[in-house]
Amino acid sequence: MKIEVEQLGDLNKAKEAGHNKNFNFLSEALTAQNKDVTAIVNSLAEFQVAIPSWALGAGGTRFGRFGFQGEPSNLGQKIDDIGMLHQLTRTAGAVSLHIPWDVPEDYMAIKELASSHNILFDAVNSNTFQDQANAKHSYKFGSLSNISKVSRDQAIAHNLDVVKIGDKLGSKSLTVWLADGSNFPGQSNFQDALQHTEDSLKEIYKGLPEDWKLFIEYKPYEPNFYSTVIQDWGTSFMLANACGDKAYTLVDLGHHLPNTNIEQIVSTLMLKGKLGGFHFNDSKYGDDDLTVGSVKPYALFLIFNALVYGMENNPQNPYPAWMIDASHNIKDPLEDLMQSLEAIQEAYAKALLVDQTKLRDAQANHDVVTCQEILQNAYRTDVRPLLEKARLNAGGAINPVAAYRELEIRKKLIQERGANSIATGL
Amino acid sequence: MKIEVEQLGDLNKAKEAGHNKNFNFLSEALTAQNKDVTAIVNSLAEFQVAIPSWALGAGGTRFGRFGFQGEPSNLGQKIDDIGMLHQLTRTAGAVSLHIPWDVPEDYMAIKELASSHNILFDAVNSNTFQDQANAKHSYKFGSLSNISKVSRDQAIAHNLDVVKIGDKLGSKSLTVWLADGSNFPGQSNFQDALQHTEDSLKEIYKGLPEDWKLFIEYKPYEPNFYSTVIQDWGTSFMLANACGDKAYTLVDLGHHLPNTNIEQIVSTLMLKGKLGGFHFNDSKYGDDDLTVGSVKPYALFLIFNALVYGMENNPQNPYPAWMIDASHNIKDPLEDLMQSLEAIQEAYAKALLVDQTKLRDAQANHDVVTCQEILQNAYRTDVRPLLEKARLNAGGAINPVAAYRELEIRKKLIQERGANSIATGL
Amino acid sequence: MKIEVEQLGDLNKAKEAGHNKNFNFLSEALTAQNKDVTAIVNSLAEFQVAIPSWALGAGGTRFGRFGFQGEPSNLGQKIDDIGMLHQLTRTAGAVSLHIPWDVPEDYMAIKELASSHNILFDAVNSNTFQDQANAKHSYKFGSLSNISKVSRDQAIAHNLDVVKIGDKLGSKSLTVWLADGSNFPGQSNFQDALQHTEDSLKEIYKGLPEDWKLFIEYKPYEPNFYSTVIQDWGTSFMLANACGDKAYTLVDLGHHLPNTNIEQIVSTLMLKGKLGGFHFNDSKYGDDDLTVGSVKPYALFLIFNALVYGMENNPQNPYPAWMIDASHNIKDPLEDLMQSLEAIQEAYAKALLVDQTKLRDAQANHDVVTCQEILQNAYRTDVRPLLEKARLNAGGAINPVAAYRELEIRKKLIQERGANSIATGL
Amino acid sequence: MKIEVEQLGDLNKAKEAGHNKNFNFLSEALTAQNKDVTAIVNSLAEFQVAIPSWALGAGGTRFGRFGFQGEPSNLGQKIDDIGMLHQLTRTAGAVSLHIPWDVPEDYMAIKELASSHNILFDAVNSNTFQDQANAKHSYKFGSLSNISKVSRDQAIAHNLDVVKIGDKLGSKSLTVWLADGSNFPGQSNFQDALQHTEDSLKEIYKGLPEDWKLFIEYKPYEPNFYSTVIQDWGTSFMLANACGDKAYTLVDLGHHLPNTNIEQIVSTLMLKGKLGGFHFNDSKYGDDDLTVGSVKPYALFLIFNALVYGMENNPQNPYPAWMIDASHNIKDPLEDLMQSLEAIQEAYAKALLVDQTKLRDAQANHDVVTCQEILQNAYRTDVRPLLEKARLNAGGAINPVAAYRELEIRKKLIQERGANSIATGL
Repeated sequence: MKIEVEQLGDLNKAKEAGHNKNFNFLSEALTAQNKDVTAIVNSLAEFQVAIPSWALGAGGTRFGRFGFQGEPSNLGQKIDDIGMLHQLTRTAGAVSLHIPWDVPEDYMAIKELASSHNILFDAVNSNTFQDQANAKHSYKFGSLSNISKVSRDQAIAHNLDVVKIGDKLGSKSLTVWLADGSNFPGQSNFQDALQHTEDSLKEIYKGLPEDWKLFIEYKPYEPNFYSTVIQDWGTSFMLANACGDKAYTLVDLGHHLPNTNIEQIVSTLMLKGKLGGFHFNDSKYGDDDLTVGSVKPYALFLIFNALVYGMENNPQNPYPAWMIDASHNIKDPLEDLMQSLEAIQEAYAKALLVDQTKLRDAQANHDVVTCQEILQNAYRTDVRPLLEKARLNAGGAINPVAAYRELEIRKKLIQERGANSIATGL
Repeated sequence: MKIEVEQLGDLNKAKEAGHNKNFNFLSEALTAQNKDVTAIVNSLAEFQVAIPSWALGAGGTRFGRFGFQGEPSNLGQKIDDIGMLHQLTRTAGAVSLHIPWDVPEDYMAIKELASSHNILFDAVNSNTFQDQANAKHSYKFGSLSNISKVSRDQAIAHNLDVVKIGDKLGSKSLTVWLADGSNFPGQSNFQDALQHTEDSLKEIYKGLPEDWKLFIEYKPYEPNFYSTVIQDWGTSFMLANACGDKAYTLVDLGHHLPNTNIEQIVSTLMLKGKLGGFHFNDSKYGDDDLTVGSVKPYALFLIFNALVYGMENNPQNPYPAWMIDASHNIKDPLEDLMQSLEAIQEAYAKALLVDQTKLRDAQANHDVVTCQEILQNAYRTDVRPLLEKARLNAGGAINPVAAYRELEIRKKLIQERGANSIATGL
Repeated sequence: MKIEVEQLGDLNKAKEAGHNKNFNFLSEALTAQNKDVTAIVNSLAEFQVAIPSWALGAGGTRFGRFGFQGEPSNLGQKIDDIGMLHQLTRTAGAVSLHIPWDVPEDYMAIKELASSHNILFDAVNSNTFQDQANAKHSYKFGSLSNISKVSRDQAIAHNLDVVKIGDKLGSKSLTVWLADGSNFPGQSNFQDALQHTEDSLKEIYKGLPEDWKLFIEYKPYEPNFYSTVIQDWGTSFMLANACGDKAYTLVDLGHHLPNTNIEQIVSTLMLKGKLGGFHFNDSKYGDDDLTVGSVKPYALFLIFNALVYGMENNPQNPYPAWMIDASHNIKDPLEDLMQSLEAIQEAYAKALLVDQTKLRDAQANHDVVTCQEILQNAYRTDVRPLLEKARLNAGGAINPVAAYRELEIRKKLIQERGANSIATGL
Repeated sequence: MKIEVEQLGDLNKAKEAGHNKNFNFLSEALTAQNKDVTAIVNSLAEFQVAIPSWALGAGGTRFGRFGFQGEPSNLGQKIDDIGMLHQLTRTAGAVSLHIPWDVPEDYMAIKELASSHNILFDAVNSNTFQDQANAKHSYKFGSLSNISKVSRDQAIAHNLDVVKIGDKLGSKSLTVWLADGSNFPGQSNFQDALQHTEDSLKEIYKGLPEDWKLFIEYKPYEPNFYSTVIQDWGTSFMLANACGDKAYTLVDLGHHLPNTNIEQIVSTLMLKGKLGGFHFNDSKYGDDDLTVGSVKPYALFLIFNALVYGMENNPQNPYPAWMIDASHNIKDPLEDLMQSLEAIQEAYAKALLVDQTKLRDAQANHDVVTCQEILQNAYRTDVRPLLEKARLNAGGAINPVAAYRELEIRKKLIQERGANSIATGL
């Protein structure tokens, strides 16, 4: 199904007067503070976040899963869902495929479908944390780090396959997340595991097309509960340096020990030109994979403040690949993603409001009170009219969730796909 | 399959001389320290830990599961597995059933089977964290705490059913673990959820047979990642008090926030006569459900020190129900359980060696150095000969894991049950 | 020194047009959402937070302290500082004395001074975590929990003295924070320590005037690093129940293990009528005692949402005593406190904007997306004009920090008090 | 005061029979397991840990300090204390000076004193986390990272002074621990702070004598509570690489976020040849600085297992500099240090017992159960007789704490130095 432009137009019309009033008031206030509102709105409109192909169905935990009706049951339907998201929000203009869950059967058809939705193919993701039905060798004791060469080789070959698949679709980067690690002290030799991982990554790196990037993700724990081979940014950074210029670190917000200062990691990586990708989600305890901004919105703002600073001051760092990596255990996945996208845009908009010149002055004067005030002034601003304007300019919905509900999209998806369709993935 | 007494005898014979030498040396040393070695060995022999019916198969994480061959595929086979464990270790003399995964079809046959293995039926566990195939109402948004009365009533009725099933088998307690909570701020009204939980628990409590106990488990997070209704011992304790004298708190080692002092919680509960049950496992990050004692053995010792103190000094507290609650993701579940049982007995033995009189004196004198030394002296003692002796006296194996391997039990189980059998449960 | 009414008037005049414009716009928007703006502004104006007498000087860490010039060097100067804060913010209308650091020499004079600033005497705080120069018995190994009766008795007597001092000044509550605990396993007998604490608190409780309350604070660790006698709300709640109706739990935001859901604790305590007091601060790692709202403003909002709910729905709970308990290590303490007060008022204002009726409906319908939206709608609103209005109505400054700087108050304090004055306290 | 050789001999005589019995029994058992007991005892005897000059007095927290009588009040007395420790334990053969607290007045005399105690001068420590009385520029807002060049230059010069002082005494390494960071979001520009730190460290590095090493310590938080410039091993490692071959990372056990896998960090650093120094202590919550091995002895063993592995397999890594860095808040500092030394030696001895060949085989076979057993077999062994033997061989006490008490050393120190002497330092 597809939303008609007229439908959105009608829905927006009812909200347009209110929007204009709020936008004009805010615009005037920001202009008085020497902010270039048009530039900010344009930046928001340009900011596109990839949706992973596994995120369109209900997620679950080790204790079970409560399904959601009308889930997409094949890649085409997943792209349709993302297309709809993008139509409403104008900020979800890419898909990030997960292989082998979403290998296209007909590449041309899938590319055309994506193109019809204005959806690009962003980073492709390999999977070596599960054994596939037809697998010769098991990843139970690791993939790229496995002490057994046959498992490592199988994992390397899989990653190279993923690159080939991505290449056919126009992707330009490979994301490697390794679950490799150990559950018990002594189970694994840390140095061997690290060395094998480095060697395997180099093999994969060698197979990358010239214009591709390799993103190396890190995570302290889960699904292994004693050690993880790539446990932190330092390990990922070291491995990326060992691989070469096209290898980068990927930061996933949920992949940190309690209380980690993530914005500082972001700043360090960008200074060193090594922040390649970014996975958004939120969490209170561990890798909870909750809706972006639902638990710690100020932390998200501080991270965006670091990202904006880096994008403006660190030409040595490439433009990062953005992706939402959340699990939708109890909400409609599409609504959940819209709430995540809204939170991302909100944090980005507020970061764009930070007065970097005044901040630098206050820092130079050790005026800590003013430093805090500058960030808080930006954060306390209600930027929702800016987000609405960016969407409106691009043909999206003033209020995406409301539009989705008024158009009864989930109901129609259930009619089309049935109540019991299940998306591949976790 | 069953292990023959002669088989064990033969295996033990080869290790007996070494055992005797070590035991005699240790016994002499402990006797010189005024320890009653016979009493300690007897205490160890009497200490029995229940095995949950879901623990005989491979566990997994939300990222998948690597199966283990020869898993029991029905309740009878599960009890057989526990019987074998008990024969080898002499410390696994009970099973804790999980309903509805393990409802007996033929009660008499199951009771006879358990009896033939000298296995008792300990606490029964209800399940309201998943929707069963035939369920009328969903637990997606809670069970005993659900704002919807029909879900609450269904959950209450299920718990009362579990009691009936347990009663037929000789169980005397019901363990209620609630996954109820919320994933997002605002999703749930904390006060309503708590009040509903209290009311529901009281309904279940009313349906308990006279000689039964109700164990109320707590957990800070997972599978809900913003709030959990019974988030800590304080909430469980408050609810147990509200229910009445037969209601108790159940402590699971993995159900705490980082750095919690669990032994202090144990002490408080026993002082107040409210520690009903105990679930053993180990963890580094969250509710990792690793082999007992594999990560923090000293913490386990300190907890046993509190338990031994309470069992000796708090007649107001009933003898607790012990259970292992671990997940066997990469080890043979039976070997994993043997390692857990060994670690439990080791911690218990060391706690029995603590010189409580000297400790009390040192505490009274604020002699912190000596207090620490007293605990460390007990902990640093190599108590393995005591465990061997307790097993040997009771007809078990000197070295259970070695015996299990020498007898090639897993191989035989695979021959009997096939490689692809799968145990019910998580 | 005192700020003249005219001075503030002049400063406000320059900001009044801007304020009015913003306030009117917001007021109109909120009124359209059926919010009673006048009532909200009045609620803000009525909300008063006590300033502790130890918070007017620079704080420090165990690694040292960087002093701040112009610190108050006696109780009168401290009250002057709070008076100035109150004049600027109109929300700091109380002082919370710490004994023995701030025993008045002339009660009448101190009462008159406070009265001249419109400052009330809120809860008084005892100190049994340090040894005073003239102390007979040491608190090195505990105070109310000490195994040594003489130390316990001394601590009980001290608390009763504090009550007497507070009573002369018009205080109506005593806050007991115990550092008691242990640094090493075995050092302390948990059950004895808890029992002694309960007995000692009961002694203090007996000595309370009829119309007084006892607030029992909890904290998981620091300055003791293995155990703390009153380690969590559950222990405090149990002790308060043991004491009686006038005993309550006091929540300090920094006194929790990582990731604790504090708003749920608040809700539980208010449901049970046992939330007596509240200490505000913020933290990223432990009891960091940072400026309120500087690290986790959304968590603060969620806590206020629970507080507002309780104040509206739990008549069984008394109106809580509010206090800021932060440490001013690198900022001007007065500016730091103004930033804290602003953050508190902001969170309160946003909590007042939550549409409780709609939230209840969404909760009843398990509409998690809408529940989240309702909270986020309130939180995303820029409420600063409401705070300005509340201050303006009460005669305060539109922008307190700006006024403080324009009036060069710190410079004048240094002239009056000298650069090297040092406030008593930590 | 000094302990006479005869005194120790007499004390040992009473314990020698028991020691011999235990040692012989253990030695026989280990020999049967193909362990070279003599080699292990020699390794233990060679293992020497530096005592920092600030550790001989009572420590404290930000809430105060409870003094300990008979503290050394000058550097000579501190070295005397360490000499006594070394005489009793034979494992404390070095001192680590902290400048400016312990600048020698008479270098020759101090060297001779140390030499008379067989005490070497290990790494020297600079201090830029406090302002000294005569300081021109403040470190309130940082030292090597300060945005203000004058503060940076002062800090660089101080470090170079420390090198000169150390050089005169025979030290060969400089430890830089930076408290630099920020308390509030926005206070500091992460990238500038990091760049300044790198530049400053390079300046210091340039001033190092040819045969010196630079140790760069990391810490996630405290005394700054929002960010720390060198927050983790990854940052330290990056800085060490930027400086050059003589720069290394220093690991302090207490300087990690909750649940960090420290042994893996150790393994990574040694693989890369960059583990320079190691600070021992223990903790439950944060940088608690408790007695080594008092809270998590198994974690200490796992770390030693990684260290032993690295020392045996990583010739690229220099022999690390060992130091105890604990705070003695409630114990006699000398007894506390003896307990720490005992725990270090115990963990080292157990790590030496790990059968690395069998472990490697079990790892290769993915036999996780056996891997765990191999570590546990080593850990469960009671190695105290090995430690006694190592001390006895070297002329120390069989039981150092007991000897210290029987010789009434603290009493004599108080007689010599008075009850109110206070050691310089924290």
